[in-house]
Amino acid sequence: MEDYWGTGRTEAFSDGVFAIAITLLILEVSVPEAAFHDLWSGIADQWPSYLAYVTSFITIGGIWLAHHGIFRRLQYVNRELMVINLLLLMAVSFLPFPTKLMAEAIHDAQATRAAVIFYGAVLLVVSLLFSLLWGSIARDRSILKPDVTVKEINAIAIAATPSIGFYVVVIVLAIFAPRVAVFGYLVIAVVAVLRTRGDRTPKSTTTSA
Amino acid sequence: MEDYWGTGRTEAFSDGVFAIAITLLILEVSVPEAAFHDLWSGIADQWPSYLAYVTSFITIGGIWLAHHGIFRRLQYVNRELMVINLLLLMAVSFLPFPTKLMAEAIHDAQATRAAVIFYGAVLLVVSLLFSLLWGSIARDRSILKPDVTVKEINAIAIAATPSIGFYVVVIVLAIFAPRVAVFGYLVIAVVAVLRTRGDRTPKSTTTSA
Amino acid sequence: MEDYWGTGRTEAFSDGVFAIAITLLILEVSVPEAAFHDLWSGIADQWPSYLAYVTSFITIGGIWLAHHGIFRRLQYVNRELMVINLLLLMAVSFLPFPTKLMAEAIHDAQATRAAVIFYGAVLLVVSLLFSLLWGSIARDRSILKPDVTVKEINAIAIAATPSIGFYVVVIVLAIFAPRVAVFGYLVIAVVAVLRTRGDRTPKSTTTSA
Amino acid sequence: MEDYWGTGRTEAFSDGVFAIAITLLILEVSVPEAAFHDLWSGIADQWPSYLAYVTSFITIGGIWLAHHGIFRRLQYVNRELMVINLLLLMAVSFLPFPTKLMAEAIHDAQATRAAVIFYGAVLLVVSLLFSLLWGSIARDRSILKPDVTVKEINAIAIAATPSIGFYVVVIVLAIFAPRVAVFGYLVIAVVAVLRTRGDRTPKSTTTSA
Repeated sequence: MEDYWGTGRTEAFSDGVFAIAITLLILEVSVPEAAFHDLWSGIADQWPSYLAYVTSFITIGGIWLAHHGIFRRLQYVNRELMVINLLLLMAVSFLPFPTKLMAEAIHDAQATRAAVIFYGAVLLVVSLLFSLLWGSIARDRSILKPDVTVKEINAIAIAATPSIGFYVVVIVLAIFAPRVAVFGYLVIAVVAVLRTRGDRTPKSTTTSA
Repeated sequence: MEDYWGTGRTEAFSDGVFAIAITLLILEVSVPEAAFHDLWSGIADQWPSYLAYVTSFITIGGIWLAHHGIFRRLQYVNRELMVINLLLLMAVSFLPFPTKLMAEAIHDAQATRAAVIFYGAVLLVVSLLFSLLWGSIARDRSILKPDVTVKEINAIAIAATPSIGFYVVVIVLAIFAPRVAVFGYLVIAVVAVLRTRGDRTPKSTTTSA
Repeated sequence: MEDYWGTGRTEAFSDGVFAIAITLLILEVSVPEAAFHDLWSGIADQWPSYLAYVTSFITIGGIWLAHHGIFRRLQYVNRELMVINLLLLMAVSFLPFPTKLMAEAIHDAQATRAAVIFYGAVLLVVSLLFSLLWGSIARDRSILKPDVTVKEINAIAIAATPSIGFYVVVIVLAIFAPRVAVFGYLVIAVVAVLRTRGDRTPKSTTTSA
Repeated sequence: MEDYWGTGRTEAFSDGVFAIAITLLILEVSVPEAAFHDLWSGIADQWPSYLAYVTSFITIGGIWLAHHGIFRRLQYVNRELMVINLLLLMAVSFLPFPTKLMAEAIHDAQATRAAVIFYGAVLLVVSLLFSLLWGSIARDRSILKPDVTVKEINAIAIAATPSIGFYVVVIVLAIFAPRVAVFGYLVIAVVAVLRTRGDRTPKSTTTSA
C-alpha cells in the first residue's frame, strides 16, 4: 500500500500554515492599559515581546525557505513524508505558545530560565522533525526529481543539520544565562535564513550545475 | 438549473480554511501568570491543552488529506457538493471551540464528561458530513474524472466510513471514562491519517492501477 | 492612466481574506468558566453565538461563491474594480465584529435591537459593495472574457441584486422583532448560497450555453 | 553562492501573510459590556478603532498591490530580495499591534501622541523596507523579466518613493496634532492605492508599451 501524493496541494497547505503561524505571533503583543500614562516607557517595556516576535518570525521564515527548497526538488510526496510534514507543521503551529510564554516570563527572574529552555526545546523539536523530513527523502530518492544531483542533496542536508547542535548548545547556555540564550536563538535563525540554498542558479538550464 | 464549478478555487478555499482552523488551535493554550513562580509545573499542568491541540490538529490534518484525496478525483463540483463542502468547512472551523472547552474542563471532574462528549459529537458531525460528501459523489459519478475506477471509489468510501462507528463507540465510552475517551479520539485521528490513500501510485501513467 | 491587473493573484488574495474571516468567527465563541458546574446548560446557553456563527459563515460562504462566479468571467481587473474589491474585502473582514456583538447582546433585551440592526447594516454594506462590483463590470464589458454572453451577465446581476431589498426588509423587522430578524439574515444567506450560479454547465465546451 | 528562487511560492507566501495581517485587524475591535445599556453610543464610541482599522486595512491593501506590481515584473528572486521581503512581511505583520495601541490610546489625551507617532514610525519602516526592495531590484536588473522597460522601472520607483516623505511630515504633525495625523495616514494610504500601477495595459501583447 505504497501511496504517493502530488507536491502542489501539500506545498499550498504548508505555506498556509507557515503564513498563519508567523502572522499570529503579533496577537500576543500588547501594552497594558496601566502603562498608558507614560506610553513611551510602556512601549519600550515590551522589548521581550519584540525580541520573541522577531526570533520566532525569522525562525519560521527560515523553515519556510528550507521547506520550499526541499519540496521544489520532489516529484512526489510519499506517506512517510506526508506524516513527517504534518508533525513538522504541528510543531511550527505550536511555536506561538512558547513565544508568548518567553515574552511574558522574561520580566520574572524565576520563570525566565524555564520559559527560555522550553522555547529552545520546541525549536529543537522543529529542527529534529526537519532533519527527519530530509532523512526520509535521502532513504527514498525515487521521490526526488530526476535532475537533482547527489551533490545538491548533500549540500541541503548539511545546511539543514547543524542547527540541531547549535540549539543544544544554546539550551545548555539557557541554564546559566537565559537572557543571553534568547539572542542565541535569534542568531541561529538569522544564520539559517542566510544559509538557505535557492531553487536554482541563473542559466542553470544551459549549463550543468 | 444544474450548475457546475471548477475544483481549483474550491480546493484553494478549503485548504485555506483547514490551514487556518489548524493553526488557530494554539491561540487557546496559555499558562496563567499565577503559575509563573514554578513554571515547569505550570507548563506540565497544561497537558490537557496539549492533548486537545494534538488531537484536533491530527483530526483536521486527516480530514485535509481525505479531502485532498477526493477532490483530486473530481473534474467538476456540482451544487450539492458545494453546499456539503461549505457545511463541512463550517463544522471543521467550529472545532477550535470544543477543543478549548475540553482542555479547560478536564481539570473539573463534573465538566469533563460533558466537554468530552460535546467534542466527540462535533467530530461525529464532521465525519458524517464527510460521508455525505462522498455519498453525493457516488450518486453522480459524472463529476468524477474519467480514469477513476469503481475499485478506487469503493476503497476510498471504505476508508472514509468506519470512523463514524468508532466515534459512536468512543462517545459512549466518554459517559463512563471521559479521560480515556480523549485518547480514543486521538487514536481515531492517527489511524485516519495512516489509512488515507494517496493520489496515485508511481508509474501509474504506464500501467493501469 | 488606465491600468489592468491579472485576475489570478486578486482571486488568491480575496480567497485568503474570505477563508480567514470565515474561520476567525469561532474565536469569539466560549463558555464562561462560571457555567462549568452545569456544562450542558452552559453549552446550550451559547445558542446566540452558534446562530451568529452559522449566519455569518453562510453569508461569507455565499459571497465567496458569488465572487468566484464573477471573477471566473473576467479577463482583467481594472482600477475601479480593484478598489471596489478592496472595499468589499474590508467590509467582509469587518463582519466578525458585529457577529460577536450580536451574539453577546442577545441576552440583553435593551442591547439586542441595536446589535441586530448594526449587524444587518454591515451585511447591507457588503451587499451594496457587491452590487457596485457588478455594476462596475457592466459599465466596462471589455474586461469580461469574450465568451461571456449578455444573458449570463443579466442572470448573475439579477442573482446578486435582490438581497439588498431583503436586507432592508429584515433591518426594518429588527426594529420590532430583533430575534426574528436574526433568522431573517440566516434565511437570506441560505437562499443566496442556493441561488449562486456555477462556472459552467457540463458539456459547455461542445454546445453553446 | 549566488542563489535564485522562483517567484511563485514567494508571492503565495507573501499574499498569505498580507491577507492574514489585514484580517486579524478586526480582532482587536470590541464594545465593552459596560456600554451595552446604550449600545448605539457604545458602537459610536469605538470610532478610533474603526478609523485605525480602515487606515491599516487600506495601507496593507496598498502594499499588497505594490508588492504584486513588483513581483509580476520579476523572473527570479535573489537572496537579498528574499531577505528584504521577509523583513517587509515582518513589519507588515507587526502592524496590528500599533493599530490596536492607537485605537486604545486615542481616548487618553496623554497617550494619544505617543501612540500616533509609534504607529507612524512602523508605517515609515514598512515604507523604507519597500524602497529597499525596489532599490535592490534596481541594482540587479537581471532578475527582471526581459520585457520590463527602464521607463516602467522608473515609474514604479517614483510611485513607491514619495510616501516616505509624507510619512515623515505626518509624524512631525503628530507631535502637535496627533488626531489630525491619523487622518493624514489614511490619506497617504488612499493615495497609494489610487496611484498603484497595474500589471499591463490592454492590448499590450499587440503593441509595445
